[in-house]
Amino acid sequence: MTLPPAEIGDNLQDIDTPALIIDLDAFEANIAKLAQTVSDYGVRLRAHSKTHKCPEIALRQMAAGAIGVCCQKVGEAEAMVAGGVNNVLVTNEIWGEKKLKRLAALAKDATIGICVDDATNAQDLGQVARDAGVELDVYVEIDVGAGRCGIAPGKAAADLVGIVDAEEGLNFQGLQAYHGSAQHIRTANERGAAIGGTCDLVKETLAEIAKIGIDVPTVTGAGTGSFRFEATSGIYQEMQCGSYIFMDADYAQNKDEQGDPFTDFRHSLYVLVTVMSATKPGKAVVDAGHKALGNDQGMPWVADIPGARYQRPSDDHGTLILEKAARDVILGEKLRIIPGHCDPTVNLYDWYVVVKGGCVVDLWEITARGAIR
Amino acid sequence: MTLPPAEIGDNLQDIDTPALIIDLDAFEANIAKLAQTVSDYGVRLRAHSKTHKCPEIALRQMAAGAIGVCCQKVGEAEAMVAGGVNNVLVTNEIWGEKKLKRLAALAKDATIGICVDDATNAQDLGQVARDAGVELDVYVEIDVGAGRCGIAPGKAAADLVGIVDAEEGLNFQGLQAYHGSAQHIRTANERGAAIGGTCDLVKETLAEIAKIGIDVPTVTGAGTGSFRFEATSGIYQEMQCGSYIFMDADYAQNKDEQGDPFTDFRHSLYVLVTVMSATKPGKAVVDAGHKALGNDQGMPWVADIPGARYQRPSDDHGTLILEKAARDVILGEKLRIIPGHCDPTVNLYDWYVVVKGGCVVDLWEITARGAIR
Repeated sequence: MTLPPAEIGDNLQDIDTPALIIDLDAFEANIAKLAQTVSDYGVRLRAHSKTHKCPEIALRQMAAGAIGVCCQKVGEAEAMVAGGVNNVLVTNEIWGEKKLKRLAALAKDATIGICVDDATNAQDLGQVARDAGVELDVYVEIDVGAGRCGIAPGKAAADLVGIVDAEEGLNFQGLQAYHGSAQHIRTANERGAAIGGTCDLVKETLAEIAKIGIDVPTVTGAGTGSFRFEATSGIYQEMQCGSYIFMDADYAQNKDEQGDPFTDFRHSLYVLVTVMSATKPGKAVVDAGHKALGNDQGMPWVADIPGARYQRPSDDHGTLILEKAARDVILGEKLRIIPGHCDPTVNLYDWYVVVKGGCVVDLWEITARGAIR
Repeated sequence: MTLPPAEIGDNLQDIDTPALIIDLDAFEANIAKLAQTVSDYGVRLRAHSKTHKCPEIALRQMAAGAIGVCCQKVGEAEAMVAGGVNNVLVTNEIWGEKKLKRLAALAKDATIGICVDDATNAQDLGQVARDAGVELDVYVEIDVGAGRCGIAPGKAAADLVGIVDAEEGLNFQGLQAYHGSAQHIRTANERGAAIGGTCDLVKETLAEIAKIGIDVPTVTGAGTGSFRFEATSGIYQEMQCGSYIFMDADYAQNKDEQGDPFTDFRHSLYVLVTVMSATKPGKAVVDAGHKALGNDQGMPWVADIPGARYQRPSDDHGTLILEKAARDVILGEKLRIIPGHCDPTVNLYDWYVVVKGGCVVDLWEITARGAIR
């Protein structure tokens, strides 16, 4: 693990770069805003920790009302439980005896949920739970349009629910129904239509499960882009939003019902970079490339110079295009940029540098950084 | 830091996934091949450690004849020196007093080189070197076509050489002349033409420096894609190849002079993944996405199933398209995939799992993982 890039009490310009910065005021406003919104809608929040990979943040989300967290990987779940989180749902399928044993071991210290979309996998899970003397909460994942994981909605899903329900060591807890690609549809109408289709598939599946007389305690899913639709659908009880704490340049391109930018949440996550070369007019090079920024959903935005564009990242550097910039750069100066995609950006760092009023007030360790297994 | 995903003596199928695998036979063949080639050409190798971020590998490259390593970041240089590497060149500009002081501190234990493209930066470097009581080797970086860092070739570069040469604490050691984008030009003729242009700019700069009577001990640059052209140019003394140890799906698309694939070096780096969902015909989902693979130069290749294609990565998963695959997948099986781009892939892992004859024979720590400062 790398050392922190700053000390508490440092000014922003003292922070070594590239560094991952949280604007504490914006971050706390985002946590409070979603907590209030889901409470108003009468649904629960199970915040997705794949975004932040940091138990310190998970505990703050839970202090504001979240019932627990989601994870994608067993390694993330281990980091969350080690950091004091007592309620974790792994929101996809896990195969392999080593991983399943690690998952079952966690259930001695916390409520652990897991998704299945295959009968053999459900039976493997039951065996591991019984061997470990624990019970695992199981959610049957249905494919609601993303075309990735999940069993077909309807009868096939209900049959799998029956298998899970009969398996000793497993508690059937409900349906995982997450539409990932819908989060990034730009217009609210189209996002709403996609989630409408999702809801129809969930309803069809609930009707099939009702026929076999099994109770479905929870339908869980939704993300930062779409949660208002799931929350008001009447069929979801649990929201899995993750990115809302940070926002990123990708989510900032979503539009609300009026066609205006999606301003529910504020940018609170920045990468601080240094200008390290500027030998050509209208251009400069900064010290952050693919190893410091997740660029898979588009380029980051330059927060501190209006009109400057970040382009052409290489492994360790990026180019600022300054033709339309409000001002030129100063060699050696530090600038804040807004990541294109927060989740893979966070996974590149070991520390959040928490800033308030231009001053470093805390350092939070990203203990699940690299926990991809 | 995460724990290793395997133990020495494990079989390939015992390794937890996603894991970064080195095929030791192919890896050793690559090291030997380049060592022999540069020796035949009468030039030196200064291997680029930004590719592997691992002192264990750097020391093997040096045991085979490399004079030292390149790094991109001071943090990488610190990891290399801590791991026993005694000769490091940071192949770009470094700004900021904190970073420069860290660099100067390393010069007490190793030969440390650094690039400059700005007079103020050179003076800052001199001050820091004198304060620390060390000498730093300095290379003036010229822009030879990549359009990124580097001062303009010719008179401007020669003027900067004069400033560096006069600065107490700094040893002018030569020119950094690396053409990054030329590495990935697909045809040998076009790569050769690009490096021909590079060589013209170096020659022009050498002529200007000769006018002011300063000796240029070394011209350094080149990479895995282009090094045969620099090595035979008569003006470069030092090659900075990095990716040759691993190869990746991007470099495998380069062609040689006959238009055949670039087979000088073998694929030795794989990511081992698990098939964790397969609910739709012709498709499967594996447990490696953007947090396990650097996809910025294209998608990885599926090594273990001919015709299968990896597509649509999300943060933690990828989809295999099996329509033209030689066989179907088995749920829970482990497959090797060849990363699209090795450098950012390596930066996502803490360990190499070294495999020979299907068996884990070593675990090498990636101590410069995340050393982006």
